[in-house]
Amino acid sequence: MLPTVDREVLPTDRLSLNQMTTDLRGMQETLDACARHGISTIGLWRHKLDDLGLAETARAVRASGLAVSSLCRGGFFPVASEADRRLRHADNQRAIAEAAELGTSVLVLVCGPAVDRDLEAARRMVVEGIEALLPDTESAGVVLGVEALHPVYTAERSVIVSLAQANRIAALFPPELVGVIVDAYHVWWDPCLYDEIAVASGRILGFHVSDWLVPSPDPLMSRGMMGDGVIELHKMRLAVESAGYRGPIEVEIFNRAIWEMPLDDVLPLAKARFQETV
Amino acid sequence: MLPTVDREVLPTDRLSLNQMTTDLRGMQETLDACARHGISTIGLWRHKLDDLGLAETARAVRASGLAVSSLCRGGFFPVASEADRRLRHADNQRAIAEAAELGTSVLVLVCGPAVDRDLEAARRMVVEGIEALLPDTESAGVVLGVEALHPVYTAERSVIVSLAQANRIAALFPPELVGVIVDAYHVWWDPCLYDEIAVASGRILGFHVSDWLVPSPDPLMSRGMMGDGVIELHKMRLAVESAGYRGPIEVEIFNRAIWEMPLDDVLPLAKARFQETV
Repeated sequence: MLPTVDREVLPTDRLSLNQMTTDLRGMQETLDACARHGISTIGLWRHKLDDLGLAETARAVRASGLAVSSLCRGGFFPVASEADRRLRHADNQRAIAEAAELGTSVLVLVCGPAVDRDLEAARRMVVEGIEALLPDTESAGVVLGVEALHPVYTAERSVIVSLAQANRIAALFPPELVGVIVDAYHVWWDPCLYDEIAVASGRILGFHVSDWLVPSPDPLMSRGMMGDGVIELHKMRLAVESAGYRGPIEVEIFNRAIWEMPLDDVLPLAKARFQETV
Repeated sequence: MLPTVDREVLPTDRLSLNQMTTDLRGMQETLDACARHGISTIGLWRHKLDDLGLAETARAVRASGLAVSSLCRGGFFPVASEADRRLRHADNQRAIAEAAELGTSVLVLVCGPAVDRDLEAARRMVVEGIEALLPDTESAGVVLGVEALHPVYTAERSVIVSLAQANRIAALFPPELVGVIVDAYHVWWDPCLYDEIAVASGRILGFHVSDWLVPSPDPLMSRGMMGDGVIELHKMRLAVESAGYRGPIEVEIFNRAIWEMPLDDVLPLAKARFQETV
């Protein structure tokens, strides 16, 4: 299943380990494993901050020498009431502050599902929710990365389901405040993908890789290691680079079998597949 | 979960029972149940023809007095070799002939997945495969209905994943030979849906309804009865009608729990929900 074309090997200093790839591990254990395996960048998740607390996590990350490519996630904008909207807004403000304290300028937004059937209203709330965060974003020096999720998540995770849609939202705001995240797993199916990657030029804040396994019984948990599925990762990486993105590429894999592997097996495998397939 | 707006009730003579809704039942049993419950139209599947054979099925359908809204499915165009392409083409020619013999002018196309990672090549093969069928289509008086499947099926069922894409393919050919099928389950997530329904005007050959359940652990089998999920079916039906489609609306539900219900429960439930939610 691996591509056979001759090509320049991607240097592994582009690899950022997104923490969901090692979801069963503690913060310190993952930081140590990255250091041990020469991985210089990490993508953090907010639920993992509970482990050591925010201040101690920030200290541990600095002590590890790792750069932080992004913090995931803010968002979940559609709400049923004004009270809920205020709670969500305050939580997103905290997420922005956390990103700044953790030393990353990118907060990934998972925009949230509709609270009822009304997708149009939900999508309006996403735009309004982002707009309301811009003062905090600007003062914290953080950029919001709108991540389109695969349409299979529309009902439960995100009404933003295509890169075209993420691009249209980002275009409403200055590029230093709002951009997009391109996650291969979420967008690989899209017939407009390569056009929209070009449209995203100057707005791409992150590129995430994993793979789409076949068969894929559970789309939420069956992301695969790069090379184990059907996504044309190399083609997509070249397109993202043509659009000007040369930053970290996060390996983000939701997959229980990979979570259960020893870190000293997963990290070398991710590095090797990163070079072979991305 | 049901809409509360006052509105004209949809007459049940618009309802066509797609045979996948009663997949565990034999052909004659389903035909009899439709007659018993005043359902005047059926959508047939080719794998069900094995039950009685083609000629006997055609006779049984005529004897039942039911109209046939469509036959599913032709397609699966992307292939790995010229030999495979010829086999697939011949099978699609048979599907066209079967549609004509069964008394429907609509053959639904499920276009097929890529044979390897190359989506672009697969999508070209879809267009070429359709083009090659046009002489048969024309002489049989059958129209090909390109059905966009939900992107979750990209790897295993269809590289055609949005109504925009189906519309672009259909637009390459005369409307009396190629049109599109709008299946609510497959397209409800799409931010361009209502624009593309308008674009499809004059090309819509069928409208299929079911619902998207939450949570939906298995996207292949968790379609729900209309009203049990999150799809804005009524809004979509009005849009499809504004685009000029006034034909049968197929109730097509892949769901084991519904398959296992007695037909004398399923059909009245489908009729009631059809009126309440579509």
